[in-house]
Amino acid sequence: MTGIISHADEKRLVLVSGRAHPDLARDVAAELDIDLVHTTAYDFANGEIYVRYAESVRGADVFVLQSHTAPINQWIMEQLIMVDALKRASAKTITVVQPFYGYARQDKKHKGREPISARLMADLFKTAGADRLMSVDLHTSQTQGFFDGPVDHLWAMPLLIDYVRTRVDVSNVTVVSPDAGRIRVAEHWASKLGGGPLAFVHKTRDTSRPNQAVANRVVGDVVGRTCVLVDDLIDTGGTIAGAVRVVLDAGAKDVIVAATHGVLSDPAAQRLSESGAREVVVTDTLPIVPEKRFPQLTILSIAPLIARAIREVFDDGSVTSLFDGNA
Amino acid sequence: MTGIISHADEKRLVLVSGRAHPDLARDVAAELDIDLVHTTAYDFANGEIYVRYAESVRGADVFVLQSHTAPINQWIMEQLIMVDALKRASAKTITVVQPFYGYARQDKKHKGREPISARLMADLFKTAGADRLMSVDLHTSQTQGFFDGPVDHLWAMPLLIDYVRTRVDVSNVTVVSPDAGRIRVAEHWASKLGGGPLAFVHKTRDTSRPNQAVANRVVGDVVGRTCVLVDDLIDTGGTIAGAVRVVLDAGAKDVIVAATHGVLSDPAAQRLSESGAREVVVTDTLPIVPEKRFPQLTILSIAPLIARAIREVFDDGSVTSLFDGNA
Amino acid sequence: MTGIISHADEKRLVLVSGRAHPDLARDVAAELDIDLVHTTAYDFANGEIYVRYAESVRGADVFVLQSHTAPINQWIMEQLIMVDALKRASAKTITVVQPFYGYARQDKKHKGREPISARLMADLFKTAGADRLMSVDLHTSQTQGFFDGPVDHLWAMPLLIDYVRTRVDVSNVTVVSPDAGRIRVAEHWASKLGGGPLAFVHKTRDTSRPNQAVANRVVGDVVGRTCVLVDDLIDTGGTIAGAVRVVLDAGAKDVIVAATHGVLSDPAAQRLSESGAREVVVTDTLPIVPEKRFPQLTILSIAPLIARAIREVFDDGSVTSLFDGNA
Amino acid sequence: MTGIISHADEKRLVLVSGRAHPDLARDVAAELDIDLVHTTAYDFANGEIYVRYAESVRGADVFVLQSHTAPINQWIMEQLIMVDALKRASAKTITVVQPFYGYARQDKKHKGREPISARLMADLFKTAGADRLMSVDLHTSQTQGFFDGPVDHLWAMPLLIDYVRTRVDVSNVTVVSPDAGRIRVAEHWASKLGGGPLAFVHKTRDTSRPNQAVANRVVGDVVGRTCVLVDDLIDTGGTIAGAVRVVLDAGAKDVIVAATHGVLSDPAAQRLSESGAREVVVTDTLPIVPEKRFPQLTILSIAPLIARAIREVFDDGSVTSLFDGNA
Amino acid sequence: MTGIISHADEKRLVLVSGRAHPDLARDVAAELDIDLVHTTAYDFANGEIYVRYAESVRGADVFVLQSHTAPINQWIMEQLIMVDALKRASAKTITVVQPFYGYARQDKKHKGREPISARLMADLFKTAGADRLMSVDLHTSQTQGFFDGPVDHLWAMPLLIDYVRTRVDVSNVTVVSPDAGRIRVAEHWASKLGGGPLAFVHKTRDTSRPNQAVANRVVGDVVGRTCVLVDDLIDTGGTIAGAVRVVLDAGAKDVIVAATHGVLSDPAAQRLSESGAREVVVTDTLPIVPEKRFPQLTILSIAPLIARAIREVFDDGSVTSLFDGNA
Amino acid sequence: MTGIISHADEKRLVLVSGRAHPDLARDVAAELDIDLVHTTAYDFANGEIYVRYAESVRGADVFVLQSHTAPINQWIMEQLIMVDALKRASAKTITVVQPFYGYARQDKKHKGREPISARLMADLFKTAGADRLMSVDLHTSQTQGFFDGPVDHLWAMPLLIDYVRTRVDVSNVTVVSPDAGRIRVAEHWASKLGGGPLAFVHKTRDTSRPNQAVANRVVGDVVGRTCVLVDDLIDTGGTIAGAVRVVLDAGAKDVIVAATHGVLSDPAAQRLSESGAREVVVTDTLPIVPEKRFPQLTILSIAPLIARAIREVFDDGSVTSLFDGNA
Repeated sequence: MTGIISHADEKRLVLVSGRAHPDLARDVAAELDIDLVHTTAYDFANGEIYVRYAESVRGADVFVLQSHTAPINQWIMEQLIMVDALKRASAKTITVVQPFYGYARQDKKHKGREPISARLMADLFKTAGADRLMSVDLHTSQTQGFFDGPVDHLWAMPLLIDYVRTRVDVSNVTVVSPDAGRIRVAEHWASKLGGGPLAFVHKTRDTSRPNQAVANRVVGDVVGRTCVLVDDLIDTGGTIAGAVRVVLDAGAKDVIVAATHGVLSDPAAQRLSESGAREVVVTDTLPIVPEKRFPQLTILSIAPLIARAIREVFDDGSVTSLFDGNA
Repeated sequence: MTGIISHADEKRLVLVSGRAHPDLARDVAAELDIDLVHTTAYDFANGEIYVRYAESVRGADVFVLQSHTAPINQWIMEQLIMVDALKRASAKTITVVQPFYGYARQDKKHKGREPISARLMADLFKTAGADRLMSVDLHTSQTQGFFDGPVDHLWAMPLLIDYVRTRVDVSNVTVVSPDAGRIRVAEHWASKLGGGPLAFVHKTRDTSRPNQAVANRVVGDVVGRTCVLVDDLIDTGGTIAGAVRVVLDAGAKDVIVAATHGVLSDPAAQRLSESGAREVVVTDTLPIVPEKRFPQLTILSIAPLIARAIREVFDDGSVTSLFDGNA
Repeated sequence: MTGIISHADEKRLVLVSGRAHPDLARDVAAELDIDLVHTTAYDFANGEIYVRYAESVRGADVFVLQSHTAPINQWIMEQLIMVDALKRASAKTITVVQPFYGYARQDKKHKGREPISARLMADLFKTAGADRLMSVDLHTSQTQGFFDGPVDHLWAMPLLIDYVRTRVDVSNVTVVSPDAGRIRVAEHWASKLGGGPLAFVHKTRDTSRPNQAVANRVVGDVVGRTCVLVDDLIDTGGTIAGAVRVVLDAGAKDVIVAATHGVLSDPAAQRLSESGAREVVVTDTLPIVPEKRFPQLTILSIAPLIARAIREVFDDGSVTSLFDGNA
Repeated sequence: MTGIISHADEKRLVLVSGRAHPDLARDVAAELDIDLVHTTAYDFANGEIYVRYAESVRGADVFVLQSHTAPINQWIMEQLIMVDALKRASAKTITVVQPFYGYARQDKKHKGREPISARLMADLFKTAGADRLMSVDLHTSQTQGFFDGPVDHLWAMPLLIDYVRTRVDVSNVTVVSPDAGRIRVAEHWASKLGGGPLAFVHKTRDTSRPNQAVANRVVGDVVGRTCVLVDDLIDTGGTIAGAVRVVLDAGAKDVIVAATHGVLSDPAAQRLSESGAREVVVTDTLPIVPEKRFPQLTILSIAPLIARAIREVFDDGSVTSLFDGNA
Repeated sequence: MTGIISHADEKRLVLVSGRAHPDLARDVAAELDIDLVHTTAYDFANGEIYVRYAESVRGADVFVLQSHTAPINQWIMEQLIMVDALKRASAKTITVVQPFYGYARQDKKHKGREPISARLMADLFKTAGADRLMSVDLHTSQTQGFFDGPVDHLWAMPLLIDYVRTRVDVSNVTVVSPDAGRIRVAEHWASKLGGGPLAFVHKTRDTSRPNQAVANRVVGDVVGRTCVLVDDLIDTGGTIAGAVRVVLDAGAKDVIVAATHGVLSDPAAQRLSESGAREVVVTDTLPIVPEKRFPQLTILSIAPLIARAIREVFDDGSVTSLFDGNA
Repeated sequence: MTGIISHADEKRLVLVSGRAHPDLARDVAAELDIDLVHTTAYDFANGEIYVRYAESVRGADVFVLQSHTAPINQWIMEQLIMVDALKRASAKTITVVQPFYGYARQDKKHKGREPISARLMADLFKTAGADRLMSVDLHTSQTQGFFDGPVDHLWAMPLLIDYVRTRVDVSNVTVVSPDAGRIRVAEHWASKLGGGPLAFVHKTRDTSRPNQAVANRVVGDVVGRTCVLVDDLIDTGGTIAGAVRVVLDAGAKDVIVAATHGVLSDPAAQRLSESGAREVVVTDTLPIVPEKRFPQLTILSIAPLIARAIREVFDDGSVTSLFDGNA
């Protein structure tokens, strides 16, 4: 055949990171045993972001890691701009790695004339040039369907359960959902932790005021038991701290809180440290600054999970045990 | 200015219907006080569908009604083909009206290598030419975000509650969710019905076998109370019938079942009629053939709600009380 | 360069099949000397289809085979859902293999306000995630242009001609088109069979009633000759059987019917067996159940052609002799 | 409601034209009783085209007329650029009017590694901003399906038949197709002209050399009859002139040629004038320069048909008798 | 015709605004003599933005105003979310009004592996649902071409010139470009101000460090003249302040600075107030907080220009004198 | 894993060329040491273009070279059709190589109701199937942002400077821009040639008449110096020849003209040869017919630059020194 035939069709895995959570990027790179491709990134005086990669990414399978922490719009925009630069620099594939999916909670219209921002984010990344998304413990699994392409939905629950198992007597545990809407997750936990009883806190949320909730009463059996309160994320901690109090008031022996994403917006640290919970366990999908760390807080590293998933994706691997719903 | 200026920019509302549920189409047309535009539709010998409109739809705002009942793929395809014909016939806007959103339950991947068929359906209708979707009580509200455009999400709960209120003593009602994953809906019902207690059935579902579930035990207070079991749909009735039994076994006085969509796949009619429920209330978003009607079954007409929503959309109205989440 | 360099960029060919025509899938796999990747596929109680692949398809070149036989909308929808699942499971490329292209005959508007369903089908598969289509003997070649991407248009005529050549005296053959619109195909046949005379049946088709046609009279020379009646498909057999009769009435010695796709909707089997044709030859692009097989029917296997084409596509081969128009 | 309410939602029909066929534009405008919006259009020194509209087209329904005559690529590009300018100037809708659809004959791949230029043209116009196409007598009706949107397919046959009827004794007419591939059109003609006999010329075309054909022999009854040779277009006239000769040689009394599009590439004028045909009838979908006009040529005006169709589209009219396939 | 015919096809103009520059929104609304549609907008604890419109926007022509000031990514994201909410709330058309186009300066790759953020922004707004963009004095006119749709490019120069004309003796003015790349704008100014001489500052910019520049020397005649230094925007003021000094050092009598967009990032206010310029004239396309206002600063209102353009767009007007390039 | 695993994932580079500039195609192929894949291309009688590749391009990385010279619309259309054929023939990637980007000067609206043809061209190529563009010295760098994908923007200035350096005494050079809008390019030249002084010609261009300009006077120091007049292209030569005269009149010692693209529309050759310039240097991005060559004209070969860029793209190389802005 006419033309040049080249036999060396190597694949190249490249990891780049935005500025939101450098520790996580460093840890993921270490787990993968590679260096990050250096990225120049800074803000112009008026706040516009500039990025440039220090090395060629032509033909590479690039993973762009960014943690959607505050200032969250800044970091999402930086990641979008990074994707655009990768597309124009001829990356072969671009995988957006957002361990915590920003705006995931705005996944439906509660009232007329609201946005569905979680879908919008998926479309913005697609438009910028993303081929695939990778995220950990989406607020609702339906969010996978918002992206027009593959979504690697990682599952931190095994990591959290393995740790919690070392801290409790599983024969005396009740798994508690802080909220009627998330009992399904608690069911998963309960079956993994030995099939004990399940409870939930029946509360009313005033949807017109954000980040506020009124806790009510426990539905289910908690008297004398170690309660494991589980959720996907802890934001201001109001719901969780209220649930801890309700559960203790209802006669629980003690309470451990476990959640994947430690958003920990003010005043979460204060609320949780004073809530009466024995321990609060989260992962580092989001950076947690020293002043937000309190004595009962335990932070597990998410980097090994993300690194293994990146490696699997790159290798077209079939080890699906990392991914959601493979229980 | 050069050209022809025409002052008579009339708008025209057109309603067409597929073959799945002619009674509903007739009722909606009657509520709107219009005639359906006649549609020729038949199957060729090998099952391919043919459709043609008997009248011009140029420049019209067309609403295409189809009920996603069995054979469901046949009727979805017919609706897609109807949309294609409208697009090519120069309809101004095309609104797909699917009172029950087919495949809505396949809204996420439970395991790797599954489809997200609910998203796929939204994309298929968009591709065919739909500008907007209208549906009643989606299985999960996130499905609104699957369509790239406006979704009019109608809300049948007020209709059901108004009826149920005439059948129970609201001071002695417990609203029960048949399932841990749908307690949020039960919370809505409870607050609308007077703020009484809430309960749910804690069960294990074997996800590898469809349409099967193992009911367990009631969490919450039901003794001596009239229980209103609520769900978005009743398919084979296994979950609901099991829940009725569990609730009665737990000491409930009696049970009313209320759900928007009466899918009623076999053996739902038998199961429900023998379940011990005092009454089973559904709407006619899906046709219910005579042989599936049993003595305890009450069917409410959804046509007035759909007709009012169509009229609002056509008039660019601001009456949003028909739509989801405007409580 | 920074990152991981992987030298083993293997390609992987994967074949999956829907439930419409398992025998053909088995035969194609056997020709390729591979196993089908097992696919779980069943209908939920209300007719919604569930599919899941038993093995990873990440990075694979996947060929999704489905035969568009009755219930045709069911099988097309299943194939669309299979494509969606492949896209979300990170297949590298997805080729839709539809030996008979469903709705191919609805490739234009005969009247106003009709759909162009053949174009719609191409768009639906594109939207679901198909990169390429493969099909055999499209009803009109223009259908290739309906898909926005490569179409591998296979050509079964050589297969049919090779067989027919063994059954006739080519020096005494007239190739006959059953229809004025398909004489071009008959011309191809005639030139391949030795350049004998050509004829066609001049008939009037009533387009407002499907599957019906009124045969008229033969234009061309058939007296005392073996006529080979050729078409792309046989549906209810009305046109073909009528043509057989007209040709025999006009003095033909005998008639052989040859067509690629044996749709054979009722009452084709009866009509053809009673038509007076000596033999009816088709391929198995569509399954033919035992009760539709009649004594004069010969079924040629299409599997070798499809398997060779799949292999060529996978290998980026240049053997184009399989494809349409390369004679 | 908040905001400004404006009652005067007038519609405005605007007609603009490229430089290819100013006479036709003038005639269509006259039929519509409007002025063309003046368009500045010229070539820069290196051949790049410049266009600008002299008046605002904001909010207007604009029809962009261009005749795809030689230099055809120049005029197609001009029309694309005109559409772009309309889109950026906020036209409400843009209808591309191409009485002869350029590249319509390249509607399929005859061999591997060919383009499907007819589909490409549809996509180019869509990309530039066209909402709708209007064209007369497409080479194959399938071309309608190449455009993702409404196609108004006008039908010049009634115009031609009305004229031909005045020139022949319909009781002694045979309609002849010059080619096996176009007998369907001849069938239409025959049924409209009184149901007389049908014939076609069986020839071999050497597809590797364009614009060449080898005429063979007539299939059908022509002896002593007036033959009406019909086709959609006459390009170099080789096929048609050959067919005239064959038909006369076969004993026809005389021959009239009728075709919608008079492409008349050299040496068509000479060939046709010397072919022996009594009359050659075409429309002016393409300009015919004086030096291509020969004594037997009759040119019918297509402007009334196009003007009526534009008016119908603008008025959302239901008179579909102008359009293809409404016989 | 079947259906409902409605004669009252009113148009409705709606103006909504993000939170970045409420004074401008108020002024534009006042110029239009309408109320803004109230928009609820706030940040959740983790920085995610929530928006909701207090009134229906169904069928309205909506203009969404946002000023791209710091924190710029926050405000761009808010505007994107506002557009998404409008799309899902069935607005008829959505026009994004961004008086200063954020990221407009990143309109090309200066080096490999950079983004083209100005194009990215256009695509993000398109994806969110914008039909049209409106902006004032784009950094480069080519940016119009980044959006796939109409761009209304307003032109503030007449406003600035009208003011400057009242402050100078036009017979003794030299228009000066601060930069070799923007002399074309200075040429426009010079011709509008009476055709006086033109000069520019020849400097070297170190592209690897943002917001820094090294001014060099004046090319052109400035001795004893009033110099009008013109640019599209003033960011940190380094370039402009340097140019003022160079021009004064070269013998200019005095200097007036005029620019459309007063970005005024630190330390612009200090630099400009100490630069020696007699006056610095900008518009309020961006908010200028009191602490950035210095004695020599004059701020002209851009609201009348924007309001007139919105009105023109709504009315499909032909007054194009507001728009760029109509001199 | 199930399926066929193939280890030989070779890459294949293929170069094809349109008919516009066969010499350049031959030279690029020679630099790459490959044969062009033979392409059949001719015009049908009515000017429609036919193309077909003589060899398979399945799975290949194909570079499609075309020079946008007169008749420019013909050659752009040919390249679009070539891209369509490649897409349908299953090329893996398609890179459009247009050394001179046709319509690049129409990159913005100068007045209302104009097109932005440079953006349109980018979209047309994307629609046809192009994955990437490669071009030399775009008229404005912003044009890179018009294409939705990677653009390899090659940079001929080093080639021109290397040559000019051999022809002048760099210590006595002034770089001159013929036009206020292109001084930035002159700045680049000046810094590369040793940092000498800079000048520009201040002129008025009448935008309503194409290809015409009125030269005025030199701003900057040229007396007694060798002036290097630089531009991206020379079209009719009016601007450049005028500038040469103005510079000589202002006292320059002599003048060398350097530009990347020698469009040389009439009467450029005459104007330039009579302009007084010592030498005019261009590259062969466009063919220059013998009758346009004049004694002072020097033509440098662009083939080595293009060949090296193609090779880099194919190899995913990181040598970015060929590309724009990497100084």
